[in-house]
Amino acid sequence: LRAEIIAVGTEILLGEIVDTNGPWIAQRLPALGIDLLHKSVVGDNLERLVDTFRRAWDRSDLVLVTGGLGPTADDLTREAVAALLGEDPKVDPDLESHLRGLFERRGNRMPEQNIKQAWLIPSARPIDNPRGTAPGWWVERDGRTVVCMPGVPTEMERMWEHEVRPALAGRSSRDVLVLRTLKTVGLGESTVDETIRHLYSTPGVGVGTYARADGVQVRIGAKAPTEDAAIAIIRPVQLEMEQLLGAAVWGRDDDRFETYLAGAFTARGQTLAILDAGTAGYAASVIADAPGAKDYLRTAGIRLASGTAAAGNRDAEGPSPESAMALARFARQDAGSDFGLGLTGVLGPEPEYSTPPGTVHVAVATPQGDGPATTITMNQGRLGVKRRATTTAMMLLRRALIALD
Amino acid sequence: LRAEIIAVGTEILLGEIVDTNGPWIAQRLPALGIDLLHKSVVGDNLERLVDTFRRAWDRSDLVLVTGGLGPTADDLTREAVAALLGEDPKVDPDLESHLRGLFERRGNRMPEQNIKQAWLIPSARPIDNPRGTAPGWWVERDGRTVVCMPGVPTEMERMWEHEVRPALAGRSSRDVLVLRTLKTVGLGESTVDETIRHLYSTPGVGVGTYARADGVQVRIGAKAPTEDAAIAIIRPVQLEMEQLLGAAVWGRDDDRFETYLAGAFTARGQTLAILDAGTAGYAASVIADAPGAKDYLRTAGIRLASGTAAAGNRDAEGPSPESAMALARFARQDAGSDFGLGLTGVLGPEPEYSTPPGTVHVAVATPQGDGPATTITMNQGRLGVKRRATTTAMMLLRRALIALD
Repeated sequence: LRAEIIAVGTEILLGEIVDTNGPWIAQRLPALGIDLLHKSVVGDNLERLVDTFRRAWDRSDLVLVTGGLGPTADDLTREAVAALLGEDPKVDPDLESHLRGLFERRGNRMPEQNIKQAWLIPSARPIDNPRGTAPGWWVERDGRTVVCMPGVPTEMERMWEHEVRPALAGRSSRDVLVLRTLKTVGLGESTVDETIRHLYSTPGVGVGTYARADGVQVRIGAKAPTEDAAIAIIRPVQLEMEQLLGAAVWGRDDDRFETYLAGAFTARGQTLAILDAGTAGYAASVIADAPGAKDYLRTAGIRLASGTAAAGNRDAEGPSPESAMALARFARQDAGSDFGLGLTGVLGPEPEYSTPPGTVHVAVATPQGDGPATTITMNQGRLGVKRRATTTAMMLLRRALIALD
Repeated sequence: LRAEIIAVGTEILLGEIVDTNGPWIAQRLPALGIDLLHKSVVGDNLERLVDTFRRAWDRSDLVLVTGGLGPTADDLTREAVAALLGEDPKVDPDLESHLRGLFERRGNRMPEQNIKQAWLIPSARPIDNPRGTAPGWWVERDGRTVVCMPGVPTEMERMWEHEVRPALAGRSSRDVLVLRTLKTVGLGESTVDETIRHLYSTPGVGVGTYARADGVQVRIGAKAPTEDAAIAIIRPVQLEMEQLLGAAVWGRDDDRFETYLAGAFTARGQTLAILDAGTAGYAASVIADAPGAKDYLRTAGIRLASGTAAAGNRDAEGPSPESAMALARFARQDAGSDFGLGLTGVLGPEPEYSTPPGTVHVAVATPQGDGPATTITMNQGRLGVKRRATTTAMMLLRRALIALD
């Protein structure tokens, strides 16, 4: 099944909104055995919409459209599909009474322009949208399928999960591709590669290693007629890799490092306190955002330039590895926690205290005293520096925690 | 000038990376008088790249390409442009020595596959890329222009600002569109509309009002042969609107509310302390991220569920408007600051203390005692709730601060 995605909307074309629906859908197609070959954005212009839909119709088996289903004159997805197929839209009585009912229950009269949300063409059936007023359109003709979904992500995602994905499952005669990711930390890419290389030749399995901000990832893929069959091929390889990589594996698939960290601290009955003078609180807020953070994170403070002497007076000397460690020690003592994390630095864009921007010092205080510490320097904007410093901090915390075992 | 944008890369097509270059460029085209009509994503596949480029060549005057300029076999933008035009790429001696010099200065030998980053075709001239190894390509032929830029945003943005935008300026015979935004808070959309409506009919000016998370925005647009001429049309309208809207205007264009807030507190010599038990530190980290935050923000603490009794014991009663105010008072007293901000709530996805997820209480303590407070409830995911609570907190702080004047 050859598919393409079309995002409809002038606001997306002009960059006022970033399209997140396209990537979201794209990630879910391999598991259905569907090949995505094209993705395009088109504004709210009937002629260009019809052109874009026609090209998609000519070259693809499945066209996934998001947006343009609203009630206003700018919302032209229905009109464009009708024009493409030369079919006339008519008000569907069931959809109309459903739509009017929605407004009545909110105590409003339906504006008459909204009636087009009750339109259908002969080749279209409606797709249920309990989170909004606009039903989707499932269009089938001449061996082609066009699926029109709302542009509002929460509406689209619900429609995809409950209606579209189930209807597409099993349609492709191609094998489905299942991917599993192992997330490691503390080993270089070549070490990971050497450790598991003999498994690369397992029949039916594809393996890749990728260096990411939070460590080296191993991706295992398998194709099979069904998802279960693909998982059955992956599973023994995955288990053997996990055994070989041992403690380096911290997570799988969508796992986040902060969630891993909360689990690892809590499982060991250890607690943490943070003093963040390095990322304007970004690191602290990421670590605090993990489910279960409240079970191990005692305090988290954001400190700006005017630090106290006890916590390493930045005004006097500027940020340094020593002041990061002083913050970590101070956080630990002040909160009575087992571990302390300290960050200090200069995010930029301007240098401060003659420290170049993009410099962050990170240090961990442990029950045994001063723990691991490091300094990052990079030139990727404030957010890039914050992210890197945060990942670095979490990796140092893990190293310090595991050293106790 | 009819333009289109093409993002190259299988990782973008498959949704593993969200393309931010397209929206970034799209936002910058109206000021150049360039109409953007299409945007598409294509994977690292030579045949589909050439197809996509050919369609763009046929229908557009200007094709802006990002990505596919790396050194590996997957990076096929140069190959596709050469195939489109039927021209042979050759190693350019100047580019080659520059490239080899980059590696030598880092003490490395250049891998031989990288030599294609020194390629040119007869219709292409190189575009300087001081942030990376790959120069861009500026291709001109048959009245068409193709501009190939790197996919790494920091490289692309630098190339755009210093090389591409200046070269495109003045190329379009169409008028340039300049947009200016006034950002207001505290007035409803209809009040803003009534206040400035008589200016809507100013010749050559278009005005729109938009309700945003941080208040009502007024957008003023004008088209003219040059940017300066468009600004000259906008300026008197903008000044009159600013006078009419008075204190409701907090910023313009790309201004951020946290930056406004830092300026407003500092100008009044007032200080703030934060206790954030409502957004896992997100609100605190946004407010602390403003340039100049250190001049007015005394302390910012992230508090998880185990709060002290003094600051509103959440364990006992659960989050409430009263506990948000208790946090605000405690923050203020503890830090000796003029103002205190307290947040508490349940982000979700699970309910806690029988409080539904997506509930955040926000309160401000002032030199006069308890200040403004409010509760938000919404169902847009953790990040949506955090953002809304943060905006709400900043708007309450502004209200409390201005009440002192």
